[in-house]
Amino acid sequence: MSYTIQQALIPVEDGYTTVDVQIENDRIAAIAPQLPINGTAIDGKNKLLLPGFFNAHTHSSEMWQRGMIPPVPLELWLAELYDFAPLDPEQVYLSALGTAVETLLSGGTSVVDHLVLIPGKEIETVAAAVRAYREIGIRAFVAPLIQDEALTAGIPTGGKEVEKEAFFRSTNEILAMMKDVVTQFHRPEEGINLLVAPTGIQLCSDALFTGCIELSDRYNLCRHSHLLETKAQQKLAREKYDCSAVEHLKQIGYLNDRTSLAHCVWLDDDDIAILAKTKSTVVHNPLSNLRLGSGIAPILKYRQAGINVSFGCDGSASNDSQDLLEAIKIGSILHTVTDPDYRHWITPRQAVEMASCGGAKGLNVSDTIGTLTVGKKADLVVYNLTNLSLLPRTDPIGLLILGRPTQVVDSVWVNGKQIVSGGKLTTIDIDELRQKLFHRSQWSSQRQSKTVTDIEVRYRAVMGL
Amino acid sequence: MSYTIQQALIPVEDGYTTVDVQIENDRIAAIAPQLPINGTAIDGKNKLLLPGFFNAHTHSSEMWQRGMIPPVPLELWLAELYDFAPLDPEQVYLSALGTAVETLLSGGTSVVDHLVLIPGKEIETVAAAVRAYREIGIRAFVAPLIQDEALTAGIPTGGKEVEKEAFFRSTNEILAMMKDVVTQFHRPEEGINLLVAPTGIQLCSDALFTGCIELSDRYNLCRHSHLLETKAQQKLAREKYDCSAVEHLKQIGYLNDRTSLAHCVWLDDDDIAILAKTKSTVVHNPLSNLRLGSGIAPILKYRQAGINVSFGCDGSASNDSQDLLEAIKIGSILHTVTDPDYRHWITPRQAVEMASCGGAKGLNVSDTIGTLTVGKKADLVVYNLTNLSLLPRTDPIGLLILGRPTQVVDSVWVNGKQIVSGGKLTTIDIDELRQKLFHRSQWSSQRQSKTVTDIEVRYRAVMGL
Repeated sequence: MSYTIQQALIPVEDGYTTVDVQIENDRIAAIAPQLPINGTAIDGKNKLLLPGFFNAHTHSSEMWQRGMIPPVPLELWLAELYDFAPLDPEQVYLSALGTAVETLLSGGTSVVDHLVLIPGKEIETVAAAVRAYREIGIRAFVAPLIQDEALTAGIPTGGKEVEKEAFFRSTNEILAMMKDVVTQFHRPEEGINLLVAPTGIQLCSDALFTGCIELSDRYNLCRHSHLLETKAQQKLAREKYDCSAVEHLKQIGYLNDRTSLAHCVWLDDDDIAILAKTKSTVVHNPLSNLRLGSGIAPILKYRQAGINVSFGCDGSASNDSQDLLEAIKIGSILHTVTDPDYRHWITPRQAVEMASCGGAKGLNVSDTIGTLTVGKKADLVVYNLTNLSLLPRTDPIGLLILGRPTQVVDSVWVNGKQIVSGGKLTTIDIDELRQKLFHRSQWSSQRQSKTVTDIEVRYRAVMGL
Repeated sequence: MSYTIQQALIPVEDGYTTVDVQIENDRIAAIAPQLPINGTAIDGKNKLLLPGFFNAHTHSSEMWQRGMIPPVPLELWLAELYDFAPLDPEQVYLSALGTAVETLLSGGTSVVDHLVLIPGKEIETVAAAVRAYREIGIRAFVAPLIQDEALTAGIPTGGKEVEKEAFFRSTNEILAMMKDVVTQFHRPEEGINLLVAPTGIQLCSDALFTGCIELSDRYNLCRHSHLLETKAQQKLAREKYDCSAVEHLKQIGYLNDRTSLAHCVWLDDDDIAILAKTKSTVVHNPLSNLRLGSGIAPILKYRQAGINVSFGCDGSASNDSQDLLEAIKIGSILHTVTDPDYRHWITPRQAVEMASCGGAKGLNVSDTIGTLTVGKKADLVVYNLTNLSLLPRTDPIGLLILGRPTQVVDSVWVNGKQIVSGGKLTTIDIDELRQKLFHRSQWSSQRQSKTVTDIEVRYRAVMGL
């Protein structure tokens, strides 16, 4: 299919300009004023055209628990999350659709799904998510979340002897499963990419990390992981390695220019230097970090050190949404409190670049997506600037990033295929999705997590609460 | 008019219950299961009913500059804002409508408009805003923003001799204007309330505060002001009074249980004790505080001291939206970073109470609005829980406060009058408003503020940048 978007505003160095954009097959074929119409004409008048953003870290199936978990720190939140995790691959399919819809309708064309696997149904879980992303047409980076230690291993001991629970599956079994998943589902040319993604140093052995490095090298896969999301994890890393988690990951060779690391809240200056040197990417999840009390990631320092930073929503149970524009806004304005010199603050244009270019760079696809460039893949979003939430007219990107845009996404193309038109998904039936999400859930405000009760005393003691 | 809302969910102590709610004239007449239909029947099934929230601090005419001002601190931002402030009362009318629309469609039924006055057209400015609020039907607390010192007086001198610019109008003239405005427009029974609202210690003489106290006592008006929004203001207060701004306001008698104070970012423990003792209300504007780098207000400390706290969006040029749910979400989750003990963190239900009850208390109307209570004024909001952004079904209030609800407000009543139905305003033509905002503005991304250029060097020097 071919398209010609006519008279859209695009940002240029000293403001905006009005151009036509031709899309041919999966690529941007031309960008210039007054091009001949090729294929379907799209009215871009009073609209802003930007490269698609990346929702660079999320966990789609958390959507089943959004709005539900009270305000508690990650370690307790995680215990409750896992006690009530969905166990049916059909739920995974539906929440992947929901995650994709909210991402697309807030400017995202790519999603990194650090996918929680149903125990015993790992491959079915990945299959369900991949099916959802193929159907809806979003570009997906599926990162099966793996670990080889039990949840309680993630809480520091404070020097006390703590009995180690066994994990229900061996490291080798997990790596074999990952290899299966990669050979079955990794199809970059079709918009489905697999990532290796051990959950983080708090629940993974070195053997698991090393196995992932091998898979990554063998199949040319990007690497993903959580990193130092909480103060407890910083303590734990010291207990486990007697050095920082970042130093350890460097030593075992996990960090490179295809590694993206979610959160990075508790890094010191030495750690920052390592991320810069290894060209690792930081994925900033500001809403989740606030919701779980993890802290404020030192994003301005990362930027000053030349580290690539992109934005993620994180899973819906710690946010509790997948609105990428919200994550970008808060992830931009939050950091004023960490540095009084406003010359370091993130501007709306810089935020757009982080969300598009930065996202692409962190996933090793910046040569093919992430900017409005002829020859690149057409992953594009058109925003309707006549929406009340973007009026009066001032600076379109300022309004989009600093405002609270509501239903402003008019059209979306991924890989040259139009999947949103006139603000509506063209590939799936939203009403049907809504009905299914409704009927598979019920209102509830109270539930008791056994695991939280079990570990809360230890958590409070170790954290000095 | 009478209404019976049927089968709506309302929160009760241990969860939710389904009730019918009768509205008669301006009041809630009954709340109970299965009431007879009185007047118009409203389907409340799969909907959540809550008392309306308060947008407890904003400046409506800033909407003309939203998205426009780069990330700079308040003092420089303000200089640019004033250089390009709207000068036509018709613009004030339109931005007051826009502010009301966004407030209503995000759960607010009351707005405190700390209204920037057009020099020389002060009374026309108030008239324009009042006309907008009457037309749309929102409950309005109009707080004409007054000052009797020039803008540059708001920047600390750092001990240097600085020539004082004269303000263009005398204190007595301003107070006389305020008296006029109050007698012309203060009609609480019709939903239009006037407040006395000197902008803050940074630009107001003691004579102006004292004159406002007299007006407040004479006409039974609530009091409003900015308070210690920035570190610069904290410095300035020390220079001006040789004590804290809070101590000074207490000494001159400005603080009482009808005084609401916007921001309160830079207060120490003694200041907090004064606010608690005087029963003053803090209005928290988290998005503006982040956007302008003002800091994080110590909201958890205020709550622990027993101080009433409500939420505001602040003006659209420092936010840059009037979405109250966004302000409530960020104003709830932001404070985890100030206190590691999660038992102090704000729960979604507490946030709802702050936004409704807390708003009413700060404006001395908690005996008549702010809760779902028979006999109180019907300022009510019904949320559609079948909206995709509130699915899957979990805890309705958790979803509403921690999620990113989009177009979920189904119905709104203010003073018993329904002004939103099926998600649409019934009192004004939104498309016409959109057209007018569009045609009176133009896209632009660059402009040069003369005042910013003039004061930036002094600002950076005094702040040690």
